[in-house]
Amino acid sequence: MGILHGATVFVIMSLMTPVHSVLPGNPRVIDMTHTFDENTIYWPTLRQFKRTGVLRNYTADGTWREESDIEGAEHGGTHLDAPAHFSKNKWRSHDIPVERLMGPAAVVDVSPKAAADADYLVTAEDFQLWEEKHGKIPDGCLLFIKTGWGKFWPDELLYLGTNTRNTSLLHFPGLHPDGARWLVQNRGMHAVGIDTASIDYGQSTVYEAHQALFGNNIPVFENVANLDQLPAVGSVVFALPMKIGGGSGGPARIVGFVNKHEYSPPHVDL
Amino acid sequence: MGILHGATVFVIMSLMTPVHSVLPGNPRVIDMTHTFDENTIYWPTLRQFKRTGVLRNYTADGTWREESDIEGAEHGGTHLDAPAHFSKNKWRSHDIPVERLMGPAAVVDVSPKAAADADYLVTAEDFQLWEEKHGKIPDGCLLFIKTGWGKFWPDELLYLGTNTRNTSLLHFPGLHPDGARWLVQNRGMHAVGIDTASIDYGQSTVYEAHQALFGNNIPVFENVANLDQLPAVGSVVFALPMKIGGGSGGPARIVGFVNKHEYSPPHVDL
Repeated sequence: MGILHGATVFVIMSLMTPVHSVLPGNPRVIDMTHTFDENTIYWPTLRQFKRTGVLRNYTADGTWREESDIEGAEHGGTHLDAPAHFSKNKWRSHDIPVERLMGPAAVVDVSPKAAADADYLVTAEDFQLWEEKHGKIPDGCLLFIKTGWGKFWPDELLYLGTNTRNTSLLHFPGLHPDGARWLVQNRGMHAVGIDTASIDYGQSTVYEAHQALFGNNIPVFENVANLDQLPAVGSVVFALPMKIGGGSGGPARIVGFVNKHEYSPPHVDL
Repeated sequence: MGILHGATVFVIMSLMTPVHSVLPGNPRVIDMTHTFDENTIYWPTLRQFKRTGVLRNYTADGTWREESDIEGAEHGGTHLDAPAHFSKNKWRSHDIPVERLMGPAAVVDVSPKAAADADYLVTAEDFQLWEEKHGKIPDGCLLFIKTGWGKFWPDELLYLGTNTRNTSLLHFPGLHPDGARWLVQNRGMHAVGIDTASIDYGQSTVYEAHQALFGNNIPVFENVANLDQLPAVGSVVFALPMKIGGGSGGPARIVGFVNKHEYSPPHVDL
């Protein structure tokens, strides 16, 4: 795994020259990560995020000190779902090669359909319509599904459909199981991300989109932020999760690079 | 902060072409992160890392499920020290602009001196000797201090000098406070990393190197892995911490890109 198999990031080191003078398009860096704090949305039935302050004061020697402990489930906030989460003997968090956590981004915008139907399921046809405009979903890409739900963060009622722990009340869009199966059978993306709490829609009970992707060792990123700042094609994303030994997921920091020349204002594909 | 001020990463998107055919030097991706598990070294007096398995079995509907909870201090394993850790009103974890968490890497190898003296302190002269060979420490770089201690991970006795909670027994090399002050007064690195448990050496009691860097909003990364796989210059590193609101640090995933043409086998600078 020493090279970026099929990926397309092209990194050139030019050590003595400032980037802004050499980078075509003067790229912007987008933080595609929600902050972990008391408002961070976790899956309703799981242990929520908690930061416990240990020190925030001057110590006896006169120096300032801040320290906290953190705790929570692996599946909350902007996070990785490792394939092992729903697929036995597939990659756990620490198993995923770092090369699989980066690549050019393909952003499929279904937000108009999702706005009309909170239970909308993204189909293979959505991907095919996207490809008619933007070309084939590239091998080695990070494929992001933009439902528009990111704008509801961190309002649980709007984002999840409920602010209770009753998962039968969850309503948000997701990836249709057939769409997931079409992707793994026909396309070679490194990972799939979405701006909702789950790659399966809120009303799912058996999580078939998870299963289709994870059965093929395709990691998933959920609660991805700021997808509205990425173009359909032309950006590069690094999605780096905490390296939890034996983990089924974990908090991730996701950053995108947008070439200003290739970027156009928020738009709608479908 | 929309551009990589003074940094040198040059990212070109070439969406339809596999990287290995277009990348000069065929870069390798180095995971500079220790896995978080029961062997992960944390600061001895702080809450240690714990992953608690919640599910690892087939559920009633016949699908496989794995889930865990995680907990621990912000300061353990491969992690960020945010400036607020030791400097009042400086950046907390979520405040640090993502642009400051990436850049070309400058790797200063003091491992022969540290091998001869576990309490070795890296001086301004060490940086000046490095610059005679490799040029000025570049603006916007991530400056890594390679003490060689990474090879002791995860043996606490070798890595920390003690496997007790008695911090007076800690012995490992670090950055001299005068070296830290020279850096912030004379050079424009984005952040500083080290392959030990602390940027201050084990015998420090007042953490002056931390204070010098943090007083100037320079983040620090500790317990950095695989520094022996980076050349002195010519690589690019992304050091992405968990985005903890109000945090003083946090777990980080660090990846380096090494251009094979520029890489030479492990070497010694000083």
